[in-house]
Amino acid sequence: MNKDIPEISLQRLPVYLNYLRSLTDEDGKYISSGAIASALKLGEVLVRKDLAYTSSAGRPKVGYVRTELIAALEEYLGCNDVKNAILVGAGGLGRALLSYGGFGKYGIEVVEAYDSDPAKVGTNVGGKLVLGIDNMAEGIKKYNARLAIVAVPASAAQGVCELLFKEGINGILNFAPVLISAPDNVVVRNIDVAANLAILASMV
Amino acid sequence: MNKDIPEISLQRLPVYLNYLRSLTDEDGKYISSGAIASALKLGEVLVRKDLAYTSSAGRPKVGYVRTELIAALEEYLGCNDVKNAILVGAGGLGRALLSYGGFGKYGIEVVEAYDSDPAKVGTNVGGKLVLGIDNMAEGIKKYNARLAIVAVPASAAQGVCELLFKEGINGILNFAPVLISAPDNVVVRNIDVAANLAILASMV
Repeated sequence: MNKDIPEISLQRLPVYLNYLRSLTDEDGKYISSGAIASALKLGEVLVRKDLAYTSSAGRPKVGYVRTELIAALEEYLGCNDVKNAILVGAGGLGRALLSYGGFGKYGIEVVEAYDSDPAKVGTNVGGKLVLGIDNMAEGIKKYNARLAIVAVPASAAQGVCELLFKEGINGILNFAPVLISAPDNVVVRNIDVAANLAILASMV
Repeated sequence: MNKDIPEISLQRLPVYLNYLRSLTDEDGKYISSGAIASALKLGEVLVRKDLAYTSSAGRPKVGYVRTELIAALEEYLGCNDVKNAILVGAGGLGRALLSYGGFGKYGIEVVEAYDSDPAKVGTNVGGKLVLGIDNMAEGIKKYNARLAIVAVPASAAQGVCELLFKEGINGILNFAPVLISAPDNVVVRNIDVAANLAILASMV
C-alpha cells in the first residue's frame, strides 16, 4: 500500500505524527500548516502537500483539527493494524531493540528474536525470547510476520536475508552496514548508524 | 561544509562508498555509473549527478577508476579527518553504539560516554569509559568534540541537548523519538527506529 506517496514524503509522516502527539489540549483544537512547518523547520507548502496524502485539507485561516489529523496519519501509517515483526541477531544492538518499547505506538510488535550463538539462545530480553536460528521459519509462520529487523554482523546479513525471503518476509529493516540484494517484492530499509554520523559530520 | 549538495544526495554517498568498498580487484579497475545504478537499484542519471558532487566525471564507455572514486567519496565525507564524538546515554542502545566498531571507517571516534545513572558511571563498554553527566563539559573540551550521539529517553533528550549546545556541540545524532529544538548553527539528525519500521510496514 501507500505506493502513491513519494518515499521522501512518507518519511516525514512519522515526524508530523510525533510532533502532533506531543501537543496537548492546551495547545488548542486546531493547528495550522504554518505552525507545523515552523515547529519542524520545514516549508509550509511542503507540509501541506505531505499532509494532503493522508487527510483532507485544513480549513482556511483555521487549520487542521489536531485530533483528526493525528487519526488520519495513524490510519495512513497503519498504526491501528497490529503487525508482528521478528528480529534476527541478539547482540548488543538487537538486545537494545528488543527492550525498546517504542514500536507499539505504530502498531508493531516485535514478537521473537533469533540468534545463531548458543550462548544467547534461551535468554529473555525485554520479555522476548531469543531462539535459535533454526526456529525462525516456524516463528515467522506462527506469528504471520511479514517484517523483520536484521541486526547481525555485516558478513552474515545477506545469508540471513535469504532465509527471510524464503519464509515470506517482505519488509526488512537492516542495520548491517552492507548492501542487501533482495527480490523485487521485498523492501529493504537500511539504518547505517555510522553513515548517519558521517553525513552529520559533513553537514556541520 | 558540503552545503552545496542536496541532503538527499549526501545521504546516498555512504551507500556508494560502502558498495565500492565491497568490490575487489577482481571486479576490475573501472566501474560505470550504470553498474553502480544497477547494483543499488537507482537511476543511472541520479548516480552520475550524485557522484559529480564529489569527483570529476567518469570516462565515456569506461567509467570511473574505482579506487579514485572511493578516494573522492572518502575525501568528500571527511573520512580522513579524525573527528571525536561523545555519546550521552549508556542504556542498551548507547552501550551497543559504544561497542560498535563501524565509525572508524568514516574517521569518527566515539571517545567517551556519559550517563546520569550512578550504576552505569565508571563502567567500561567497548573499551570506552562511561562517566557522569557532570564530566561531559570537560570531556567535550578535552577531546575537542563537535559531534554527539544522544541515546537517552525521550523525556531527557531536550535537556541533554541544551547542555550540548552550551558546550559547543554543533552536530547531534538523536535516537530519542522526540523533536529537538536547536539553535540555527546546530544540525540535528534523527534516527527513529520505530518510525523507520512503521514506514517500512506501510511500503510493503
